Amino acid sequence: MIVEGVHFLAADPPEDVAWKLVAVNLSDLAAKGARPLGVLLGYPLHEDEEWNARFLAGLGEVLHGYSVPLLGGDTVSGPAGATRMLGLTALGEAGGCVPSRSGAASGDILWVSGTIGDAGAGLRIAIGELEGPDALLARYRRPEPRLELGQALAPLAGAMMDVSDGLLIDAARIGQASALGLEVELREVPLSEPLRQILGDGSRTRIDAAIAGDDYELLFAASPAHSGDIEAVGRRLGVPVTAIGRFEDGGGLTLTENGVPLPLPPRLGYEHGSKAVQPVESLPPLP
Amino acid sequence: MIVEGVHFLAADPPEDVAWKLVAVNLSDLAAKGARPLGVLLGYPLHEDEEWNARFLAGLGEVLHGYSVPLLGGDTVSGPAGATRMLGLTALGEAGGCVPSRSGAASGDILWVSGTIGDAGAGLRIAIGELEGPDALLARYRRPEPRLELGQALAPLAGAMMDVSDGLLIDAARIGQASALGLEVELREVPLSEPLRQILGDGSRTRIDAAIAGDDYELLFAASPAHSGDIEAVGRRLGVPVTAIGRFEDGGGLTLTENGVPLPLPPRLGYEHGSKAVQPVESLPPLP
Repeated sequence: MIVEGVHFLAADPPEDVAWKLVAVNLSDLAAKGARPLGVLLGYPLHEDEEWNARFLAGLGEVLHGYSVPLLGGDTVSGPAGATRMLGLTALGEAGGCVPSRSGAASGDILWVSGTIGDAGAGLRIAIGELEGPDALLARYRRPEPRLELGQALAPLAGAMMDVSDGLLIDAARIGQASALGLEVELREVPLSEPLRQILGDGSRTRIDAAIAGDDYELLFAASPAHSGDIEAVGRRLGVPVTAIGRFEDGGGLTLTENGVPLPLPPRLGYEHGSKAVQPVESLPPLP
Repeated sequence: MIVEGVHFLAADPPEDVAWKLVAVNLSDLAAKGARPLGVLLGYPLHEDEEWNARFLAGLGEVLHGYSVPLLGGDTVSGPAGATRMLGLTALGEAGGCVPSRSGAASGDILWVSGTIGDAGAGLRIAIGELEGPDALLARYRRPEPRLELGQALAPLAGAMMDVSDGLLIDAARIGQASALGLEVELREVPLSEPLRQILGDGSRTRIDAAIAGDDYELLFAASPAHSGDIEAVGRRLGVPVTAIGRFEDGGGLTLTENGVPLPLPPRLGYEHGSKAVQPVESLPPLP
């Protein structure tokens, strides 16, 4: 589900909103090493017919781009002037290996694909807070799910997820789910050339990147024995993969810069405002 | 997807909103003769934590009631004070027979399960327009998907759907999808005893019931050769099934009362306000 003002801006082009709605869901499949089978759309129709039509055009574009069919869904009457909320369910099929968040082992390396912080800078460009190239804006508006990479990494990764709420908060979630401590080296967090050109390479830039979120890169834990295979997968698919940390016995997240521990930033990424809807033991068990 | 002010009222108990969200989706599975496997929830968290907690309690109740697991989904931050929109995707498994809307044949009988118009009266009770028993209010707030009935009817029905937008508009949709004409006899539309007690049994009551919607009964077309089997299924499951019309060559909907054609009401049920999001041939094909 994506919400205007939270996951996209009212001024974002409707085509890009459609792209993002599909891409962020495909990214969840990528993190499970799954191949997409199709999507189901929940769409509140608006009084703004041009918005509807442009959204539909963008939907066609992204679904064609990833060869994913629209299987069905629901259109409803949206109340006039209401905040836009769009729902999408992506269905996929995974092979034998489906990494969870809880499968990291002590001694595993923490890896991340691509570059981090570009979408965060892109959001600042979108709201006029920053000037920068279209490449960064595109990372915010048109994220690219790492589907092929996820399928190739699934057999090698003990734990995997996509970075949506922020690199640090998502890394801490893997550590917590795996009941392990985790050290992340800020200098290893991969930044893109366009990002460094406009924001430099200082600690502030790196911390901002690591908590910004919306990256939709893959974050995964793997045994050091797989490092060669992981780097080979990255080379084959043309996607950088970077070792940025290590899991260890204990608990908690430690952030270092050149090996020296840093105080953790006051927030590690985007956190939902409520804990009311969490997995509940009283619900019926999974099949 | 259900929307406050469209599919439920702001004053509806949150437990009932959760019930309805699940039930209307299970009803779609029922109309395909499918067995539910699980649901995925898209939930915008609200600043009103009590509402969240009561919604969750109702969710547990309905999922337990139908033995359906919550497989996953997404919680997002809902903007403060925004109209509530809730998304749910139900996954199910169908046997060999999956009735569509387009499979009615000339000469087929149109059947409907249960009684029609109770939820429409329940809505009028909920908004204070009518006084009436809790049984009718419950039909509006806690519809019961006809899962067992749908599975039993699927092999017998050429076409099937659930009545959500209104009996007449949904019947007309089967006729149109099947490229057939359809005659519906108003006097055969099954009304409940509580409904007739407060609204009588006149033409106005019957027409209102037939266009009110929210019934979540099954509406289906079947060859007259299956009539005995269909009635036996209804008896076995304790759900009335009533023949209310007949498909024929030609096109359009004819409404009769005691065999005499009536002018069609100005609207046949609930219609979405836009045609912008319709199946689009430019989207990738189904697998």
